[in-house]
Amino acid sequence: MQTIDRAKDLHLYRQVTDLINTNIESGTLRPGDRLPSLRRMSEQIGVSVPTVRQAYIELERQRRVESRPQSGFYVRAQSANRMVRPSTRLGAGPKPMPVACRTLMERVYDGLYQPGIVPLGIANPCMAHPAARGLHRTMKRVMSRVEERALGYAPTLGERRLRQQIAYRYLDTVGATVDPDDICITNGGQEALLLSLQAVAKPGDIIAVESPAYHGLLELIDSLGMLALEVETCPEEGVLLDSLAKTLDLHPVQACLFSTTLSNPLGVSMPDDKREALVRLLEDREVVLIEDDVYGELLFDGRRPRPAEFYAQSGRVLSCGSFSKTAAPGYRIGWLLTGGFRSPIERLKRSYSCSSGLLQQLTLSEFLASGDYDRYLKTLRPVLRQNAERMSALVAEHFPADTRTSRPVGGSVLWLELPRSVDSETLFDSAIRNGISIAPGLIFAPDRRYRNFIRLSFGHPWSERIEAAIAWLGAEVGRLTGH
Amino acid sequence: MQTIDRAKDLHLYRQVTDLINTNIESGTLRPGDRLPSLRRMSEQIGVSVPTVRQAYIELERQRRVESRPQSGFYVRAQSANRMVRPSTRLGAGPKPMPVACRTLMERVYDGLYQPGIVPLGIANPCMAHPAARGLHRTMKRVMSRVEERALGYAPTLGERRLRQQIAYRYLDTVGATVDPDDICITNGGQEALLLSLQAVAKPGDIIAVESPAYHGLLELIDSLGMLALEVETCPEEGVLLDSLAKTLDLHPVQACLFSTTLSNPLGVSMPDDKREALVRLLEDREVVLIEDDVYGELLFDGRRPRPAEFYAQSGRVLSCGSFSKTAAPGYRIGWLLTGGFRSPIERLKRSYSCSSGLLQQLTLSEFLASGDYDRYLKTLRPVLRQNAERMSALVAEHFPADTRTSRPVGGSVLWLELPRSVDSETLFDSAIRNGISIAPGLIFAPDRRYRNFIRLSFGHPWSERIEAAIAWLGAEVGRLTGH
Repeated sequence: MQTIDRAKDLHLYRQVTDLINTNIESGTLRPGDRLPSLRRMSEQIGVSVPTVRQAYIELERQRRVESRPQSGFYVRAQSANRMVRPSTRLGAGPKPMPVACRTLMERVYDGLYQPGIVPLGIANPCMAHPAARGLHRTMKRVMSRVEERALGYAPTLGERRLRQQIAYRYLDTVGATVDPDDICITNGGQEALLLSLQAVAKPGDIIAVESPAYHGLLELIDSLGMLALEVETCPEEGVLLDSLAKTLDLHPVQACLFSTTLSNPLGVSMPDDKREALVRLLEDREVVLIEDDVYGELLFDGRRPRPAEFYAQSGRVLSCGSFSKTAAPGYRIGWLLTGGFRSPIERLKRSYSCSSGLLQQLTLSEFLASGDYDRYLKTLRPVLRQNAERMSALVAEHFPADTRTSRPVGGSVLWLELPRSVDSETLFDSAIRNGISIAPGLIFAPDRRYRNFIRLSFGHPWSERIEAAIAWLGAEVGRLTGH
Repeated sequence: MQTIDRAKDLHLYRQVTDLINTNIESGTLRPGDRLPSLRRMSEQIGVSVPTVRQAYIELERQRRVESRPQSGFYVRAQSANRMVRPSTRLGAGPKPMPVACRTLMERVYDGLYQPGIVPLGIANPCMAHPAARGLHRTMKRVMSRVEERALGYAPTLGERRLRQQIAYRYLDTVGATVDPDDICITNGGQEALLLSLQAVAKPGDIIAVESPAYHGLLELIDSLGMLALEVETCPEEGVLLDSLAKTLDLHPVQACLFSTTLSNPLGVSMPDDKREALVRLLEDREVVLIEDDVYGELLFDGRRPRPAEFYAQSGRVLSCGSFSKTAAPGYRIGWLLTGGFRSPIERLKRSYSCSSGLLQQLTLSEFLASGDYDRYLKTLRPVLRQNAERMSALVAEHFPADTRTSRPVGGSVLWLELPRSVDSETLFDSAIRNGISIAPGLIFAPDRRYRNFIRLSFGHPWSERIEAAIAWLGAEVGRLTGH
């Protein structure tokens, strides 16, 4: 039994550090577990509170634990996997192109709705801990109160009260003042992206995207007859600005479509100074930025980065938000900060889908106004963090050692770089046959660059079925590589 | 006091006819009122039931009354106005063109949401008699039953149970067998039109439309960079097939976008044989037909014409349906019969808006399955018919005598041809200033052809405010023409 020994020729705080590390390695303390409080630890092992604090800080430096404000110290996911590499291998290679893998993308979607599937292929953060009770209660109240009006059309730009609530939330979380009339309510974030692209570009135009990029963006760009062009992206800071500048020199890019907060699948969030520099660069070049900000509220630590739109001086930055990732995917309610494009966006919204669902808008408006939304997010984020840690740990345990993974700082997806010999389409097929849906890397770039990558979602209530699915996937990757 | 006189040298049934006509002219019997039953009338005026029947049939021949199955005889709207004329004046004139009047269209929409407005400018049939109680009750039940799943994403093509219900309804009402997988649930009929156009045409393509045509179609065609081409349309039979054939000779039309049942604004329904001939003509020419069938269930007499899609042999006919006109505009749930375009439509739906609202789909599915939908429509249609009659009668009373009107056989709109000197934009502006929204004729064609036309909606609970608004409009038109 390991205890503290004052006679030992080792700093007391080092002994505390070792003690905690031993417990982590044995699995007594697991990723996501909270360390005992400073006071409690001090009492239990008979060293002073400052010594325990020094030990905890050392552990944090070692990246074994992390501190969470007003909460304490927590065991970090100890992935044995190295981190995925930046996509700097793109070199002079990438060309604007239509999207490959159309058929595979369809099979991925088909798989998601097979009965009984383990759905690791869909990014669905809020379903990890659904707000069903609160939202249903609010909607029932709305129906009783507004009665017949709840069935009618909402205005084109959306119910004004909801747009005011969204504006209030920007003010409250990032100190930004938004005119509610510069917000257009959309059928989820996806329609916000559609309206943005249609407002600023036309068929044949080049749209720059992160690499890897969310397959829904790529499919949309392709559907509109536009061409996607990958930009080098780093898993720690997002799009590399130097590379972007060179890309803009080489190609007549009409717009950039980036997820500056929690890009999907990398789970990386661009630091504030880089975000501002990105806006400056694009404004200098007179290139439109469409920001996919649907994960903006889902950093594990609850920090809310400013959308790039708030650094804009030109009106050429649009930002897409959504309640699909943070409250209710099936409500199909997102929004668009229209920048300098309010009038064409309003016209497109009207002609594409008239307006968005009124009852859901009224419900969300009340859900936000009551504070329920904010309280819900505070309970959702720790669940997502814990799921991320569990999934990372299981991948480290079950996948081949040369597997690399992303280090998501929020959201609901983990990005895996598998050994080079693994074809993610083959893995996808055999997983589906075994009742598991995954997102093969092939669909995250216009070319076949991410052939040996997969994306796994941890946006579901954690379960033994999920644990077994990850173990099965790891073993299957082992089989595919001949281990 | 007028009574029956057996001594008179006039057939008894003629005397009954005169008696009824006198009561209609005095306003004792008003449009929409039911005549006393044959038996009751026979007892009251002391003539035989067959004689009364003969009189009622004569009145029907005179178009003063109409019989409704299992219900009796009703006073018809006696518009003193002549019927609007067919658009055969188009001659060689019409050219494919982008849409004029963008700004006016925006002002029409802005007006609709002004507080306290009398909303005669929006086509909203089911709001004349909303199904709020039944739909709210069903939705509450759905929320309690499916709980968390109700917040999740629906599949791309839509909730399967709803697609089966829609297929069942086609079988039940028009005897057509539809594969539920050939149905794509959309964000209202408008998105169904969007997906159809994007699947079959590209920017610069020519799309043939009725003349006049629903402004939402024109704005959509324009937004997609396509060109609208008017086809001559008759207010009694819809698109004129001879004219259409000539138009196809002259122009490389990519697709026709027609409302074969209850075109908006004319309210005309194409006879079945013409509908079939239309499909044959377009299939011969290899031109796609996109059918806007969102009013298919709203003929006053409850008849449900077969959508043109059911005469198709080629897969080049698509049909757009919706619950926005028949149940709940704010649910934003419509559908598309995808014809031969299932796969591209599914891909477009996914990339444009992921899927449609799940909770509304579950609710409508249950509303249909329980029979509540059908029972509701049976109560809605007579309300719409009565509103149409009241509005036609008031227009005849208050508008200048040379005003012409449509004779809608269903739906919720009346189309007025005003004296030539009236500019509908001027009338729109002064109406808005007086708290009344109307739809100016200018927005119903790509050019300014319908300058002296307006569309009035009777899809609202009838009220004295509406009566006063029609009287005010009639007087204003009188002022504008210097009467």
